Amino acid sequence: MEKLVIVKVGGAVLEDPVTLNDFLGHFAAISEKKILIHGGGRAATQLSTQLGIETRMVEGRRITDAETIKVVTMVYGGLINKNTVAVLQSKGCNALGLTGVDMNLISAVKRPVGEIDYGLVGDITNINTFALSLLLQAGFVPVIAPITHDNHGQLLNTNADTIASSIAVALTNVFSVSLVYCFEKAGVLADPDDEGSVIAEMSLQMYQHNKQLGTIHSGMIPKLDNSFKALEMGVNEVIITNAGTLNTSKGTHLSL
Amino acid sequence: MEKLVIVKVGGAVLEDPVTLNDFLGHFAAISEKKILIHGGGRAATQLSTQLGIETRMVEGRRITDAETIKVVTMVYGGLINKNTVAVLQSKGCNALGLTGVDMNLISAVKRPVGEIDYGLVGDITNINTFALSLLLQAGFVPVIAPITHDNHGQLLNTNADTIASSIAVALTNVFSVSLVYCFEKAGVLADPDDEGSVIAEMSLQMYQHNKQLGTIHSGMIPKLDNSFKALEMGVNEVIITNAGTLNTSKGTHLSL
Repeated sequence: MEKLVIVKVGGAVLEDPVTLNDFLGHFAAISEKKILIHGGGRAATQLSTQLGIETRMVEGRRITDAETIKVVTMVYGGLINKNTVAVLQSKGCNALGLTGVDMNLISAVKRPVGEIDYGLVGDITNINTFALSLLLQAGFVPVIAPITHDNHGQLLNTNADTIASSIAVALTNVFSVSLVYCFEKAGVLADPDDEGSVIAEMSLQMYQHNKQLGTIHSGMIPKLDNSFKALEMGVNEVIITNAGTLNTSKGTHLSL
Repeated sequence: MEKLVIVKVGGAVLEDPVTLNDFLGHFAAISEKKILIHGGGRAATQLSTQLGIETRMVEGRRITDAETIKVVTMVYGGLINKNTVAVLQSKGCNALGLTGVDMNLISAVKRPVGEIDYGLVGDITNINTFALSLLLQAGFVPVIAPITHDNHGQLLNTNADTIASSIAVALTNVFSVSLVYCFEKAGVLADPDDEGSVIAEMSLQMYQHNKQLGTIHSGMIPKLDNSFKALEMGVNEVIITNAGTLNTSKGTHLSL
């Protein structure tokens, strides 16, 4: 099967124009078919503050009320998405920016209220692989912002790491999929304070062991849980690496 | 040639949820291939005010500085575009929201500084008819926000009426194009204060006569100039009608 590279970028990288430009240059240069998924948390928090909207986070997840979904739609779906596409286009990469509502790409249901009411947050129910394949086969590069919809007119805020792994899994029917999570660090670190301590190869067993020991940083846990699940569900490889260099031979390679 | 309906909606309609919902219902029901182009001026002014950014308009055109292009990208490309697509999807219309940067749909150049410096405002240089045709032939419905780009990474604010007529003209090679401008009024009015005074048929000669007499409202002039130019350049029909009913047998039908 033809190779597809799915790259997820998030966090601090999106806020540093120099690193972002380097990253987008490396992304544009990937010769295989590709998809970019971006987050954008801190910019949404900034705009919320400017508008006097309180930001509430629980375990790194944003509580999304009616005002907050407007903010994330503007920041993720508008500002970050369109500026990213503009830079990619200037580098000769024929990108188009989408959210999960466009072409009905990502359907979701509003997360049921349990101990915590996350508000307008979506849990993914379906990925439209037909639409994504059509764009990829025509030579376009989808750039996806982390917004989904409930098919009844409501936009929903959805975790970008989860969108990346869900799209990766859904497209294993059509492509041999590499999933690359990239961010400001060099990979999964054995010692969070030592950038030189990148774990080059990490098996599921090693991950579970490190998780028990508590040596893996809490923010990495959902990303790694998503990653190993993606491998189990047929994604060919998962790599966690630095965004500035986007060097997939470095960083952390995961295996079952 | 197959028929294509290009609808431009703007102004007060986008700010009234009831009229907007009616309009989108009628748009979704159009059985031919179709494109929606939207504006969204007042919402951008609102957000600018909330963020303490001064709004400056000259002859109805927004002076667009570096902060203002961020606002319009968030409001037009994010909030209005994605909510419009969400409502259309809920009505079974397979829409996708785009700006001119996506798929390199609309290239532009920054307007040269003359008597007035409009700032980051774009004059259209090219429409990507290949990409639009591909989407239309695959059954998707493009929903386009009035942002273009300069192919060097810069987003540009561009008049939505002009985008609509430019796309209409560009697609006359592929389709028999109907261009429908719709808004809160019933059509072009002989007396701006009398909703019953709709001019059903307006020729270019009649328009020029009325323009000289000053009976045509100033805001209508760029719209009508665009419309007659579109007819001259091969667009099959141009209709100016009410958005709430989107009845193309009513309103004002233009002819050369």
